[in-house]
Amino acid sequence: MSVATTEHPVLLTPGPLTTSPQTRQAMLRDWGSWDADFNQITTRVRQHLLEIAHAAQTHECVPLQGSGTFSVEAAIGTIVPRNGHVLVPMNGAYCQRIARICEYLGRRVSTHSYAEDQAISPADIDRLLSADASITHVAVVHCETSTGILNPLQEIAKVVHKHGKSLIIDAMSSFGAVEVDARATPFDALIAASGKCIEGVPGMGFVLVRRSVLESCKGNAHSLVLDLHDQWVYMQKTTQWRFTPPTHVVAALDQALQQHRAEGGLAARGARYASNCRQLIDGLAALGLKSFLPREIQAPIIVTIHAPCHANYNFQAFYNAVKRQGFILYPGKLTTVETFRVGCMGHFGGEGMRAAIAAIAHVLDEMEISVAA
Amino acid sequence: MSVATTEHPVLLTPGPLTTSPQTRQAMLRDWGSWDADFNQITTRVRQHLLEIAHAAQTHECVPLQGSGTFSVEAAIGTIVPRNGHVLVPMNGAYCQRIARICEYLGRRVSTHSYAEDQAISPADIDRLLSADASITHVAVVHCETSTGILNPLQEIAKVVHKHGKSLIIDAMSSFGAVEVDARATPFDALIAASGKCIEGVPGMGFVLVRRSVLESCKGNAHSLVLDLHDQWVYMQKTTQWRFTPPTHVVAALDQALQQHRAEGGLAARGARYASNCRQLIDGLAALGLKSFLPREIQAPIIVTIHAPCHANYNFQAFYNAVKRQGFILYPGKLTTVETFRVGCMGHFGGEGMRAAIAAIAHVLDEMEISVAA
Ligand SMILES: Cc1ncc(COP(=O)(O)O)c(C=O)c1O
Ligand SMILES: Cc1ncc(COP(=O)(O)O)c(C=O)c1O
Repeated sequence: MSVATTEHPVLLTPGPLTTSPQTRQAMLRDWGSWDADFNQITTRVRQHLLEIAHAAQTHECVPLQGSGTFSVEAAIGTIVPRNGHVLVPMNGAYCQRIARICEYLGRRVSTHSYAEDQAISPADIDRLLSADASITHVAVVHCETSTGILNPLQEIAKVVHKHGKSLIIDAMSSFGAVEVDARATPFDALIAASGKCIEGVPGMGFVLVRRSVLESCKGNAHSLVLDLHDQWVYMQKTTQWRFTPPTHVVAALDQALQQHRAEGGLAARGARYASNCRQLIDGLAALGLKSFLPREIQAPIIVTIHAPCHANYNFQAFYNAVKRQGFILYPGKLTTVETFRVGCMGHFGGEGMRAAIAAIAHVLDEMEISVAA
Repeated sequence: MSVATTEHPVLLTPGPLTTSPQTRQAMLRDWGSWDADFNQITTRVRQHLLEIAHAAQTHECVPLQGSGTFSVEAAIGTIVPRNGHVLVPMNGAYCQRIARICEYLGRRVSTHSYAEDQAISPADIDRLLSADASITHVAVVHCETSTGILNPLQEIAKVVHKHGKSLIIDAMSSFGAVEVDARATPFDALIAASGKCIEGVPGMGFVLVRRSVLESCKGNAHSLVLDLHDQWVYMQKTTQWRFTPPTHVVAALDQALQQHRAEGGLAARGARYASNCRQLIDGLAALGLKSFLPREIQAPIIVTIHAPCHANYNFQAFYNAVKRQGFILYPGKLTTVETFRVGCMGHFGGEGMRAAIAAIAHVLDEMEISVAA
């Protein structure tokens, strides 16, 4: 696992995150995008991603160039027909982004807002779907990375299924570490990206789409490059990407997936992150730093911490000092309370987390910030 | 310069192409996307790209995640207003793709077609613009990579400027090796990507947009992720990318740009490719293999070669045999004649080209393909 140095700090961030040396070394060779050797990598990666969600029988994996948001927009644009109506329950920045995408695309959207420390309620979804039969799709964020909330996906999926509606899941910061089993959690599309819990490098996303849904999506998309149906049809025919793939990123993802499997798959990855998360919350609590969320809804992915209430604190100085100790923190994203965030994801475990907590303790001391525990 | 091995073949392809070891090694470290060190790289890369086109005074560089086509679509969608009308002169697959993008986006488009071995005629553009005053934009491909034609950009730009219309240039496979000087060749947008003549790895594109035009583009875009105005405004405010950047790809591009400068900039890069190109055409001619284009319109980027007219030839077998010699060729893209393509671009020079020609000679011999010279 990774060791922190000032020269090469460890990222405690929700992607890009700290990758393993083997993953980065997979980028030391060039691949022809037309070559069979490279296209075998693409095929293997797509298959492996489906298997992580137990979706190989029912779904197709369509990879897409760009960051995760490119895949979110592609999924909405390809799967929701132009006269569709999307319900977006909102408890953070990434749900808001989905609603904004619907507006850009001219897809009708209804939102339902929660406080930033509240999980989405499946009962509300039930009620909202009963009240408005024109809703065709529900788009939900699994782990709301802006706070670290884990939304109750299983229960939401059941409700949406009961109403015969289509579920689109933004599983960007949970896929590969928090279980989503397509056999038990019905969804039409699930979106994630290379540089999150699979621990690849950023540069591509992917969408797991129910095959029967994908087959019916021709002509929906508002964009050539974001047309997942067109991307899929071309890939099925040629095994190639429609447009130049980020070859080095794909090769690194392939390597990262092999390490994911070697570690013990999703269960082991999730257990390591959960252990990182517990250690982080307990360690910071011992320093007098309180986490923002109640434990019951905290995902084992990223933790929002209240900024120390002390005159000597300011985020930029704190960030720079912790960086000099070899760790990169993440700023808070809340509008009302001052916070910062620490990721539990990436290529590190107990030892790394201990060192990170020690670094934060050192900096609090250095900045003469004493926090009453 | 790169040495071919069967294990790590040299790519004779138009991107992804062969990069230098230093460029790939720049990907051996992880970067936080929020971190000032990384954002300095982004700022430096944007500035450098502007300078290559002598456009720092007049234009802005907006980088975008994804392959080059993502940036082409983003440029059309952001710069052409919804009631715009785009003229696309067509002599190959990449012009056709621009027309297809206009159709997806619901932008009115008129095309004017040429044979695949004919350059675009500035006189035709003059005539077409005179005949239809409703045309607002002309979108032109500089080097048509599907054949290797260099279109007469300077003359086209003059004509478009004379008519007071807006010029959009797809310079994907020429930028950094074939001169485009914003001071002498007026354009509103020029599009290229990381993994072409700059010799970075694929994964991001960029658009050089005239500042006054960009400022007026708010609200045009059909897509959140492809909205170059929104990307630019956010980047000006924060120095960060709106959505997760492909950090390793950006770091590699920075490294590749430093090597571009060290080599002597565009003039030296262009001279090396031109020398590769001459050597390739002459070397293959000596083996009896004829290039498709007349020399006058051949760009020093990629060469289309007539397939040997011999019973023993088939592209896949030829490709595989040349690959065993350590070189990756590129298939032809013409509809009427059987061809293959060989790139002159990438991290290799005279010695590499000599070895490539020797490999092709060896394979023709091995496959018992004798071609009358
Ligand atoms: C839940 C969620 N959705 C979407 C995104 C957007 O992904 P990207 O920044 O790669 O576009 C993120 C990024 O962290 C995320 O956590
Ligand atoms: C002239 C031209 N335009 C557009 C593209 C598309 O770029 P990409 O394959 O990166 O999407 C290419 C790719 O080679 C090209 O040569």
